[in-house]
Amino acid sequence: MVVVIDKNATKQEVENIIETLYKHGFDVHKSTGVNQTVLGAIGVQPDFDTNTIRVLPGVAEVYRITEQYKLASRSFKKENSVIKIGEDIFLGDNEVVIIAGPCSIESEDQMFKLAESLTALGAVVLRGGAFKPRSSPYSFQGLGEDGLRIMRNACDAFGLKMVTEVMDVSQIDTILQYADILQVGARNMQNFTLLRELGKAAKPVLLKRGLSATTEELLMSAEYILSGGNMDVILCERGIRTFERSTRNTMDLSSIPVIHQKSHLPIIADPSHAVGIRDKVIPMARAAIAAGADGIMVEVHPDPNNAMSDGGQSLYPEQFAQLMKEVKIIIQAIGRGLSTPGLKKKVAHSIRN
Amino acid sequence: MVVVIDKNATKQEVENIIETLYKHGFDVHKSTGVNQTVLGAIGVQPDFDTNTIRVLPGVAEVYRITEQYKLASRSFKKENSVIKIGEDIFLGDNEVVIIAGPCSIESEDQMFKLAESLTALGAVVLRGGAFKPRSSPYSFQGLGEDGLRIMRNACDAFGLKMVTEVMDVSQIDTILQYADILQVGARNMQNFTLLRELGKAAKPVLLKRGLSATTEELLMSAEYILSGGNMDVILCERGIRTFERSTRNTMDLSSIPVIHQKSHLPIIADPSHAVGIRDKVIPMARAAIAAGADGIMVEVHPDPNNAMSDGGQSLYPEQFAQLMKEVKIIIQAIGRGLSTPGLKKKVAHSIRN
Amino acid sequence: MVVVIDKNATKQEVENIIETLYKHGFDVHKSTGVNQTVLGAIGVQPDFDTNTIRVLPGVAEVYRITEQYKLASRSFKKENSVIKIGEDIFLGDNEVVIIAGPCSIESEDQMFKLAESLTALGAVVLRGGAFKPRSSPYSFQGLGEDGLRIMRNACDAFGLKMVTEVMDVSQIDTILQYADILQVGARNMQNFTLLRELGKAAKPVLLKRGLSATTEELLMSAEYILSGGNMDVILCERGIRTFERSTRNTMDLSSIPVIHQKSHLPIIADPSHAVGIRDKVIPMARAAIAAGADGIMVEVHPDPNNAMSDGGQSLYPEQFAQLMKEVKIIIQAIGRGLSTPGLKKKVAHSIRN
Amino acid sequence: MVVVIDKNATKQEVENIIETLYKHGFDVHKSTGVNQTVLGAIGVQPDFDTNTIRVLPGVAEVYRITEQYKLASRSFKKENSVIKIGEDIFLGDNEVVIIAGPCSIESEDQMFKLAESLTALGAVVLRGGAFKPRSSPYSFQGLGEDGLRIMRNACDAFGLKMVTEVMDVSQIDTILQYADILQVGARNMQNFTLLRELGKAAKPVLLKRGLSATTEELLMSAEYILSGGNMDVILCERGIRTFERSTRNTMDLSSIPVIHQKSHLPIIADPSHAVGIRDKVIPMARAAIAAGADGIMVEVHPDPNNAMSDGGQSLYPEQFAQLMKEVKIIIQAIGRGLSTPGLKKKVAHSIRN
Repeated sequence: MVVVIDKNATKQEVENIIETLYKHGFDVHKSTGVNQTVLGAIGVQPDFDTNTIRVLPGVAEVYRITEQYKLASRSFKKENSVIKIGEDIFLGDNEVVIIAGPCSIESEDQMFKLAESLTALGAVVLRGGAFKPRSSPYSFQGLGEDGLRIMRNACDAFGLKMVTEVMDVSQIDTILQYADILQVGARNMQNFTLLRELGKAAKPVLLKRGLSATTEELLMSAEYILSGGNMDVILCERGIRTFERSTRNTMDLSSIPVIHQKSHLPIIADPSHAVGIRDKVIPMARAAIAAGADGIMVEVHPDPNNAMSDGGQSLYPEQFAQLMKEVKIIIQAIGRGLSTPGLKKKVAHSIRN
Repeated sequence: MVVVIDKNATKQEVENIIETLYKHGFDVHKSTGVNQTVLGAIGVQPDFDTNTIRVLPGVAEVYRITEQYKLASRSFKKENSVIKIGEDIFLGDNEVVIIAGPCSIESEDQMFKLAESLTALGAVVLRGGAFKPRSSPYSFQGLGEDGLRIMRNACDAFGLKMVTEVMDVSQIDTILQYADILQVGARNMQNFTLLRELGKAAKPVLLKRGLSATTEELLMSAEYILSGGNMDVILCERGIRTFERSTRNTMDLSSIPVIHQKSHLPIIADPSHAVGIRDKVIPMARAAIAAGADGIMVEVHPDPNNAMSDGGQSLYPEQFAQLMKEVKIIIQAIGRGLSTPGLKKKVAHSIRN
Repeated sequence: MVVVIDKNATKQEVENIIETLYKHGFDVHKSTGVNQTVLGAIGVQPDFDTNTIRVLPGVAEVYRITEQYKLASRSFKKENSVIKIGEDIFLGDNEVVIIAGPCSIESEDQMFKLAESLTALGAVVLRGGAFKPRSSPYSFQGLGEDGLRIMRNACDAFGLKMVTEVMDVSQIDTILQYADILQVGARNMQNFTLLRELGKAAKPVLLKRGLSATTEELLMSAEYILSGGNMDVILCERGIRTFERSTRNTMDLSSIPVIHQKSHLPIIADPSHAVGIRDKVIPMARAAIAAGADGIMVEVHPDPNNAMSDGGQSLYPEQFAQLMKEVKIIIQAIGRGLSTPGLKKKVAHSIRN
Repeated sequence: MVVVIDKNATKQEVENIIETLYKHGFDVHKSTGVNQTVLGAIGVQPDFDTNTIRVLPGVAEVYRITEQYKLASRSFKKENSVIKIGEDIFLGDNEVVIIAGPCSIESEDQMFKLAESLTALGAVVLRGGAFKPRSSPYSFQGLGEDGLRIMRNACDAFGLKMVTEVMDVSQIDTILQYADILQVGARNMQNFTLLRELGKAAKPVLLKRGLSATTEELLMSAEYILSGGNMDVILCERGIRTFERSTRNTMDLSSIPVIHQKSHLPIIADPSHAVGIRDKVIPMARAAIAAGADGIMVEVHPDPNNAMSDGGQSLYPEQFAQLMKEVKIIIQAIGRGLSTPGLKKKVAHSIRN
């Protein structure tokens, strides 16, 4: 921690600051310049609240110099983490993983139809919600465990893996019986009780960035899961809230190279929730791949106009076919391959940043 | 719902839009001007996803004309809701309620000392956390049920009411045994599973505004609790995230008159979390009262420099004394009174807006 | 400047960083801990671009430890600056200055009527725009110099001072002939060419905070004016852009104590532009005074429904009368007085923070 | 305009609203449902301030149904505008235009070296500032007209076109003598006096999006230039301000398909200012092209560590070479070509959205 002393601070104030640092277990290096005095507080206390020092009389500014996350950081682990999903999907290596499916699980018919067409087009993981976080209590809240059962059957019938959202600690056990990946939604990114419990789960967790969260906060939420013992965390950029109103959120694609630099964890992109409007999903999926995303997750529905939730941002199956066509070209252009478990494949050299 | 038709829309597109509205159960009024065609979609469907229509070819814009919340709105209930806490605190009437206490419950000594001094100075509700939402998994996470027990005893000893945070559905039953008010933190404002369960609780809920939530979203989260049958919801402005970095968050004091206009629910202000720095708490507490807040909640600690959390924003007891002195003057200036249960009091006419 | 070295940095990288700092004229103090190496770069270069160092291989983070503004800072000048307007208005001392008037100057009739009623109610400075920054090129753009002439006459007739907006360098000379204070609008807060020229003006400048500007950026824009030789700068909080949609902007009242701590310059508040809706102006004016504002500026119009701009946020004259009544009580409650040039007055001790 | 009536509105209030609309020249269609009354106000008044109606007693909400810009909209002109720069650069058609150069013009040596290497690598327009908008008055402010002369000579020597920033009306005439494109910086996006004057200029204007501007506000600023008679406006996405701190700004790449849908004007992307850190520029340039940008503008410097401004975000020439290599692959992947004036070229079919 670096403590910058106010130019007008009295000698007494400076002494009090130093004494307070000592009391909190820090060693202190004092460096006095012509214009400014700076204290270096030495000692590893990742959870120390720097505000305690910031408010002392005579303090101009305080800077934390160690990251607040450890296990999630590149300095803890230099090589990319590759998350194994089932037997042969490796998220985070050179191959881009395609996740697709409806917002909500609605019926057997819907899920089997979709599973069939999405598999044929190249998706390898099916997404779909059984427990839905809806901003209105009067909106459709999901089919619950019935939905999970339907989805599992649809996945098994077509060799897809399954990702679905867990909203609360009480749902974890049930969802673990069905899903291959447990998703934490943007609104729960800082539901620390939930994150802590998922640290004990034996399956990968897909952690979505909160609506106004920084990449550092996203990594600190990942740290909750990692510190519980579950090292299989997949991050997801899904758009942040900004002033722009022509899209639901604003996709922060620079978070992809930023996360790749700060952390060893893989990051995928969800253009459907980021833009919220069907016809902007394809260009943003292309852009996400070009920026280095390790996978993309998109909403597709056999009949979007009659979807029970998020119909407006769901692609028609034929639009998903077009997306796959365009996305494959970009994947190849940046020297990566498409994850196609069960198939032999030859992969070019990656330019992932 | 109002659907504005794109100037370049074809006749076929307009017909398709109208047909889609019919399918979703709306009646349609078409109004064609020289420059613009507008459709009025009539029918009450508060949970209809307007995006379903927005993405149709030929649609320029869609506006929802009914609020998405019902029970929380002023049009549902015209008179102010007054939340009864214990026997003689009435939050939301003309008297301003003062809530104070530490960030975390740390020890019996701390809580009894504080309870004594805060009571003497005019606080009527004690705040303190037993389950703490900390952004780092390595930070102090609270004393749990032991903390609740300590706090209840301290409250009982001095005739204070008790508010504490509930972070997860699994904690509700335990907390209900101790607390008078259950607090939902900013990070859980859209933890809908939690909100739904609190709708069944027999005690008032203090719902904090999320870090990037709008007042409308705050009211929709309140609607979850109200629609479950619990009508005792107290809203709380605690600052929103903005670009300004010299305060932890930015207190949106205009939310107070805004909520008072849109809703019958009372709203209090938490200047401690809003600014995050001890020496800005007093002016912002004054301002919150001047803007019409029904109460204020501030963090006070007997020894802030050694607090286990949020020490930097906690007031010294003597600062709280100063705050009470200044706040009382403003309360009187705007014609309200201070909530002093157990005392006889005479209250001037309010200018609450 | 403090340079935090990446944990994985090579010895060669650290040497290169140190060498680069030398080249840029800094002395370097190296402090190596068990976990982290930190470099202190000593030397006063307020305009040095820290990014130059931040991007070097091996750098984890860089912190500037000196503020980028000098003349605007409290460390440069400890006592409050008091801006003299005309002979007997002293903005920034213990008396609160009331500025009121229409958005745009529209006619002689409008300005004289208003000047008369506002004077009677306690305003001492008249506001009104002759050159209007309108987001649409098709909107009313102001009466130009004709408007200035009308406004000057109205001010002179009733002993008011005059503040009006300057949008461009080319307008400065003209406006200087009429106005007592030159206003720089939020959209021009970083029009550095304009600020530099105003540094040579012999009249006070009222500098509004930009829509997404931080308080630090506001002070750096003030520095442009101060460094040109004009020490009479009045800052103005007028709301910043946030996600909240029920008000035009979000008034950041904590900027008032923040600016009072960081700078010796006075700061006033403009609740009309901050909220953009007439019926929220009064509570926010009260709150601004309670937070310590040195003045308030509000829009008033004799016939708001037919105003040529901003009618929706303009008060009716009778509402302004009510505002003055409520604001006076708060001014007194916090121990300040109302600026009433030409009258004898006795002023209590201020609690300005 | 659509006016939604409050459920609690009195008959008298509704009549007053209707009368007010009549007075402002609107025809009114009233539509009364079981739960809600809605008024349609018919009439073309693009500059009408909807707030005038919003604040009337009995009004719940007001929606403008016509865009506030005309000439900039797709409904005004359906085909893409192609901006001709010099004789053979056509910005906005299928070929992607590469603009590169330093932040500031520093010396003849610097500009000639860069012009030579950038030309060889595929840039066709040189960027560089002679008048610099710096947030500190003590920072390097640019070489002024001397810089313009140097840059023009460098451009002429290598057949490049020249773009440079104009900060104030007073600089327009001078810059017109040298530059091929006049750039308006983000901080001046709403300097309406400047925009209006540029409407009379005979050269293309490159208009950058403001730091917290919406795409709609960007188009309204473009409207100022278009309505003055200059139809050659190029828009530029350069990042907006968000909470994320690991990049200078957040690049809103969805603005590219959004602008392409709303407007006929071309839009380029500036990844250097968007991210502010050299090593994130390449992935974001790739992403911008993949999202459909009509050009990219990047900062390159022969010796970034000693640049007089923005060195940290400037690419080394060899990094620009790598960027061109990667960007060309993406350009080809999405079926567009690289603008290479003076060369024969064959261009595939575009998938610009």
